[in-house]
Amino acid sequence: MDSPSDAHVTIALDAMGGDHAPASVIGGAELAHRKYPDLRFCFYGQEEVVRPLLDKHSSLSAMSNVVHCASVIAADTKPSAAVRQGRGSSMWEAIRAVAEGRAAAIVSAGNTGALMAISKLQLRTLPGIYRPAIVSQMPTKKGMCAVLDLGANVECDAATLFQFAVMGNAFARAVFKRSNPTIGLLNIGSEQGKGHEVLGEAHALMRDPAHGLAFEGFVEANDINAGRTDVVVTDGFTGNVALKMSEGTASLIRTYIKETFSRSVFTKFAYMVAKPTFDALAKRLDPRKYNGAMFVGLNGISVKSHGGADDYSFYHALKVAHHLVENDVNARISEEIAAAQAAAAQAAASQPASVLQGAVG
Amino acid sequence: MDSPSDAHVTIALDAMGGDHAPASVIGGAELAHRKYPDLRFCFYGQEEVVRPLLDKHSSLSAMSNVVHCASVIAADTKPSAAVRQGRGSSMWEAIRAVAEGRAAAIVSAGNTGALMAISKLQLRTLPGIYRPAIVSQMPTKKGMCAVLDLGANVECDAATLFQFAVMGNAFARAVFKRSNPTIGLLNIGSEQGKGHEVLGEAHALMRDPAHGLAFEGFVEANDINAGRTDVVVTDGFTGNVALKMSEGTASLIRTYIKETFSRSVFTKFAYMVAKPTFDALAKRLDPRKYNGAMFVGLNGISVKSHGGADDYSFYHALKVAHHLVENDVNARISEEIAAAQAAAAQAAASQPASVLQGAVG
Repeated sequence: MDSPSDAHVTIALDAMGGDHAPASVIGGAELAHRKYPDLRFCFYGQEEVVRPLLDKHSSLSAMSNVVHCASVIAADTKPSAAVRQGRGSSMWEAIRAVAEGRAAAIVSAGNTGALMAISKLQLRTLPGIYRPAIVSQMPTKKGMCAVLDLGANVECDAATLFQFAVMGNAFARAVFKRSNPTIGLLNIGSEQGKGHEVLGEAHALMRDPAHGLAFEGFVEANDINAGRTDVVVTDGFTGNVALKMSEGTASLIRTYIKETFSRSVFTKFAYMVAKPTFDALAKRLDPRKYNGAMFVGLNGISVKSHGGADDYSFYHALKVAHHLVENDVNARISEEIAAAQAAAAQAAASQPASVLQGAVG
Repeated sequence: MDSPSDAHVTIALDAMGGDHAPASVIGGAELAHRKYPDLRFCFYGQEEVVRPLLDKHSSLSAMSNVVHCASVIAADTKPSAAVRQGRGSSMWEAIRAVAEGRAAAIVSAGNTGALMAISKLQLRTLPGIYRPAIVSQMPTKKGMCAVLDLGANVECDAATLFQFAVMGNAFARAVFKRSNPTIGLLNIGSEQGKGHEVLGEAHALMRDPAHGLAFEGFVEANDINAGRTDVVVTDGFTGNVALKMSEGTASLIRTYIKETFSRSVFTKFAYMVAKPTFDALAKRLDPRKYNGAMFVGLNGISVKSHGGADDYSFYHALKVAHHLVENDVNARISEEIAAAQAAAAQAAASQPASVLQGAVG
């Protein structure tokens, strides 16, 4: 199995997943190949389609494999159906490569629900993890913020949210290189007693000093882009809404900028003068740079690219996968979860018997 | 009581609520006075503070009253405490003016929870309404979208969400002048079966043709700013997160623009050339223009301004109040709720007895 100490990192690619596959998958791999010469790729998909496209890139092709898979999981296939009927598909076989240690990570721009379900089935959860989550980075005024869950778990209890905090903590240590990342719990007010009851319970778990989290308490949605904490924890429904709201607002503002600067000859001239600066701004705002969400909590690295990804966008998902492998993020998560469980056990053991009995009674 | 047919519209103002009160309240009233000569204001607050500021605006002062209120509800007072101890405060007395028909609307930039609780207590809900909600307009690529609930109800059942759709429909008819506004239900995917169970039940209620709603089904958060529907319905937790996420993203992009255009002499020059266009853009993006959220479902118009509102921002909240009074939004809501209940009763009556028994069994 590949590990950070190996000379090469092999990534299994679902070559058929996504709106622009396989072209965007191969194009993204080509960009990643130029940037990270240690990467090796294994493309899972229809060989007669993949091979001719890949052979246009001689250097990439020379260090890649193609494994023929006759079927593809469609974008509208339900996760349950994908699990039952997906065997032999490009997504299934790519995940299997990770499960069997032939690749260090799988990246797919295909059906999210299917990718999660098949990843869960084949990779299994890490020891002690209740539910895997989707984590991604969002830009902030101070850098990046890891937000989870972004859609895997519609409803979450307090213990699950607590595990998200631990996993987010490990993710931020690995990816942001922070020694003690700050963590916030998303709510609709920062005062105690606000929001759902489960948030109060999760707050109590996270602030317990036994767990050593740099927990900052409740944060509001505007705190994410403000960069108040390195990690923001929420349930998958709320996280997904927050992510898509942010995308929608950014898209609206891009439209406003375009419209305002095309109003007249004068505004068009102003735009021309300012064009290099606008290009720099567009680069900073480019949503493709934030592509690549990790399914965290699984015993293997599975990265989801946006379905509409082009070459450049898919390249960023590969970059995330590379980063996660290099930083051995799952080993860190396992350690942190084990430490959290040990701390909880120790705290329970050190309580006087009467208190324990009270808790049981 | 004031009504749209009266020559004057009297608005009761909580002169002490908000970070910049009473200056911002009086400044906002001055702007509204110039724009809408039919408006009359009654300021509730500490007379020795309010009067000198008001007297600087002779024309406004001549057609305004000041009612002395010794106490103020603090920003951190809990709603329950505000209800118990708030009597005689500026907020309480301003709401009482609406309850007793001396004003057509109340506007406050004070404590949101207290404003909702005291409004509910004094104004009562409209007949047939389960829970009032907070509705506000958000900018879209095609105009505006009314979003509710924005924070009054953390958890909502399907019947409550259905009523939000009916109230949002009436709000959009009155404020956007749409004859049959389109309505979406916020979810994390547009397919049936996505999201919480309660959303499936609410979907079934909203799409029932007996109610005559132009229901477009599930929408995602990015559809709000895209302008897919005129109204988007959600629970108060999710709506509040969506609103604040949008504010946070807009603020981040404003920061990016500022930073990118101050990088060098060249970018600063480009900014100077483009400044009039940037000013036009800033005006379009100005969050103050979207200030003013209505507490919908109450038997009286109660409008919440952002706590940090300045004069211009508070003016927009007054504009919303004026619009709601002029369009008699509560009469429309009452009619629509009554019609929805009649439709539901008729549908129940027209069902064969066996089906009804099946439903009961």
